[in-house]
Amino acid sequence: MTIAQASATGSRVRSESYDELLRLLREAAVLGSVESLLSWDQETMMAPRGAPLRADQLSALSGITHAKRTDPRIGELIAACEADEAVTGDAAERVNLAEIKRLYERSTKLPGKLVSELARTSSEAMEAWKAARAKSDFAMFAPWLEKTFELHREKAACYGLPESPDGSPVTPYDALMADFEPGMTAHQVEAIFAPLRERLTALIGAIGASGVTPDDALLRERVPLEEQIAFNKLVAARLGFSFEGGRLDVSTHPFSETMGPGDVRMTTRYSEARFPEACLTTMHETGHSVYEQGLNDTGRFGQPLGMHISLGIHESQSRMLENFVGRSLPFWEWALPEARKLFTTDISRHTPEQAFRAVNAVRPHFIRVESDEATYNLHIMLRFDLERALLAGDLSVADLPGAWNERMRADLGLEVKEDRLGCLQDVHWSMGAIGYFPTYTLGNLYAGQMWDKIGADVPDLDDRMRRGDYAALLAWLHEHVHAVGRLRTAPALCEHITGSPLSHEPLMRHLEAKLGAIYGL
Amino acid sequence: MTIAQASATGSRVRSESYDELLRLLREAAVLGSVESLLSWDQETMMAPRGAPLRADQLSALSGITHAKRTDPRIGELIAACEADEAVTGDAAERVNLAEIKRLYERSTKLPGKLVSELARTSSEAMEAWKAARAKSDFAMFAPWLEKTFELHREKAACYGLPESPDGSPVTPYDALMADFEPGMTAHQVEAIFAPLRERLTALIGAIGASGVTPDDALLRERVPLEEQIAFNKLVAARLGFSFEGGRLDVSTHPFSETMGPGDVRMTTRYSEARFPEACLTTMHETGHSVYEQGLNDTGRFGQPLGMHISLGIHESQSRMLENFVGRSLPFWEWALPEARKLFTTDISRHTPEQAFRAVNAVRPHFIRVESDEATYNLHIMLRFDLERALLAGDLSVADLPGAWNERMRADLGLEVKEDRLGCLQDVHWSMGAIGYFPTYTLGNLYAGQMWDKIGADVPDLDDRMRRGDYAALLAWLHEHVHAVGRLRTAPALCEHITGSPLSHEPLMRHLEAKLGAIYGL
Repeated sequence: MTIAQASATGSRVRSESYDELLRLLREAAVLGSVESLLSWDQETMMAPRGAPLRADQLSALSGITHAKRTDPRIGELIAACEADEAVTGDAAERVNLAEIKRLYERSTKLPGKLVSELARTSSEAMEAWKAARAKSDFAMFAPWLEKTFELHREKAACYGLPESPDGSPVTPYDALMADFEPGMTAHQVEAIFAPLRERLTALIGAIGASGVTPDDALLRERVPLEEQIAFNKLVAARLGFSFEGGRLDVSTHPFSETMGPGDVRMTTRYSEARFPEACLTTMHETGHSVYEQGLNDTGRFGQPLGMHISLGIHESQSRMLENFVGRSLPFWEWALPEARKLFTTDISRHTPEQAFRAVNAVRPHFIRVESDEATYNLHIMLRFDLERALLAGDLSVADLPGAWNERMRADLGLEVKEDRLGCLQDVHWSMGAIGYFPTYTLGNLYAGQMWDKIGADVPDLDDRMRRGDYAALLAWLHEHVHAVGRLRTAPALCEHITGSPLSHEPLMRHLEAKLGAIYGL
Repeated sequence: MTIAQASATGSRVRSESYDELLRLLREAAVLGSVESLLSWDQETMMAPRGAPLRADQLSALSGITHAKRTDPRIGELIAACEADEAVTGDAAERVNLAEIKRLYERSTKLPGKLVSELARTSSEAMEAWKAARAKSDFAMFAPWLEKTFELHREKAACYGLPESPDGSPVTPYDALMADFEPGMTAHQVEAIFAPLRERLTALIGAIGASGVTPDDALLRERVPLEEQIAFNKLVAARLGFSFEGGRLDVSTHPFSETMGPGDVRMTTRYSEARFPEACLTTMHETGHSVYEQGLNDTGRFGQPLGMHISLGIHESQSRMLENFVGRSLPFWEWALPEARKLFTTDISRHTPEQAFRAVNAVRPHFIRVESDEATYNLHIMLRFDLERALLAGDLSVADLPGAWNERMRADLGLEVKEDRLGCLQDVHWSMGAIGYFPTYTLGNLYAGQMWDKIGADVPDLDDRMRRGDYAALLAWLHEHVHAVGRLRTAPALCEHITGSPLSHEPLMRHLEAKLGAIYGL
């Protein structure tokens, strides 16, 4: 870890150009953080009639931020730094500079008008999506989806086809995916997803045939919301979330959004029944937020060395807390007694073992975010395939509901009767996040591969979790992931940490072992 | 009302320069509305460690908004419009243009650096004030107050001395006050406050000597917060606040903040006891917010004809709902039965008459916002005098607590033992609102004078209020105040509506009649 150590010392190189460059990037990041607040507020606080103004605000501000990010002065400073050994002589700063350059060049390819138009459309389409989903009326949303994909074809054309890291073919989809998962192509994702799909389908089939139905009576206990909120805050804090530097609120679609240093916000959702599911959702968002709070601690706001590596790595952090911790027996051995203390509802008849089985029940579900750890990935593959077809024009927006429903039938044996339980369920396409979905399953895969290594590095982890002690896990994540910033690409980080390239093996071994035991396979 | 009617038709003059001018102003207003969100969020939502970033965001954004407001193109367009009869031939648009010019010229007098510095200092000083107030430690806040007044001396110097509307003397304080109360000087305010003070002091003295203590047992009933929130929302909605276009939240210092069309937010504060006081606070903020929602309905966001006239007029709207409605018997004849329906606490032994007397109890209080309708104005005069002395340098920041406490003793007979109950109680100086305080009492005066006229125009108003019917009152306010935008200055509006210049008479007659009856004077 010599490179990471160099970057972590905080002793900065001496170059006036570099200093000015970092200052300009920070200024752009401050403006970007205002956009984050506008988005967070739109999802959590804003009254319905505020929507048109919000679209104006986001459009105006994104244009200003974009101008700041593409300021020609940044290009001049990058060139000056490239010629300055004070910068290039430092391994970490060299990586920082190269990534600054990559991001700058990508930004300059987008006209400001398109950036503003994308921001406005995303804000407006989000409101259209909310209304359409509430009425389960796809026709209301279709024109917005049409427009969103059209604008993203234009965006992909501006970016141009990215370089292929391994000579495999690339398409315009890759240009968009690089916003979320730099360093990986759709072709590479397919190569990892194919064997995963095969073993996953076999496992889900065997579970279905097992005839076992885990006792999930715990999920039907009704717990008042105020008490659940207290419990969720306790869990989030124990897992490292600082409430001095952030908030936990409620929204329809849970998310984590970073304003910047000292201000990382996440949301969850509660129902009176199913308190363990709200808890898992909070743990998921806590994974994202603790990563962001860790990045803030680098003191490198606005620089690649202070940024998350990729959304796949981001998702590895959330999935790890949700699935590898939250769906483990040791976690419930600590958490269930804590819940008992906080709840007026008497849940004393349920054991941690029952909680563990309840949150691991495998049952195909219409809704992605309510799916179990195994079938979840089939949801992702569905969206990954459909969004590529939509972008390429191989699938028309009008045909989306049909294609979605057919695939749900084939993959999960479910008959979608309402689009709000089908292609209207997710916020992503409305917010213009195309090329985002595959990062969820990549996150599961990265989490699985890291978890093996954590188990080797922290041999008494289960005992610690049983006591509610997550300090060693958090320290590991902080050292190996959070503090690293964007020093490495996601595939390189994976190899660096685990010694092997990303594979479906660790995740499948984990699922087969855990679910195999529960379902007696 | 021919001018107002012309402005209200919506049929706009045809001038390309004018159209472009209004477009630029709207763009600046959109950016300004983002600053409003940042401020609202800082007061209601932001976690403590977000404060430094928030100061950066406000500083950066205020600089950008200022540049947009002072764009030389705006100056060119103003000149072009002044030479265009299509604009100047329309009475309302002529007023609009003149006020656009006045605001533009004021803005261009401030260097962008000073504007950013003021925004940063206000955001930082606000956090310092919160901390100092919590500890009642004036020394913690003193350096920030020092800096705030210093920056405002600089701001006043940039503005230069304003023209005196009546030849009376002006000082740098007037330059600042013009941000809040254009069209009126401190000298004119003094001339109105002096006789008010005299009659007020006599009335308060007589009340003190009356030996009467109104029964305020109602104020000691404990009502759960959730039920109070439901009651406050009911009252706010009945008084015309649209929750589709705004929010009601909780903050330490209640306020109303407009983001822009469709997004007007207000806050209140609750304690389990004293539910009528939370209700009055909400009614106060509702007055502000309904004015803003009415201004939004003009469709003139960013233009003077879509702006509030002055803070005095703004305050007249909040004071009217708080004092003339909320402290009236007819209001409680409607509201108390409504509260009974919503509260699990049994308040059936209290009559509307008792509620009316309880909320009209006159009792000198350390805290301005907890003061009664009469002594409140002495608080304002104290701040008005001290902030002028501080700005002029006649009073040093170090001497402020002493001067404050001495004045509280002289005016209200109260011995201030802690600065949090004294000079640390109000947010205004920390947020850099110097020249703002007098507008509160001006609001009381305007409200009193308008209320007389409303009584003449809507003779059955008391009966209507008794039934919870506020439609006629709201329609009157909408027509005579909200829809007018900034077509007239505050003194001109007062004369136009009531036929007389602003005077202390109507307010004093109202107080003497109401309180005289309660206290048997």
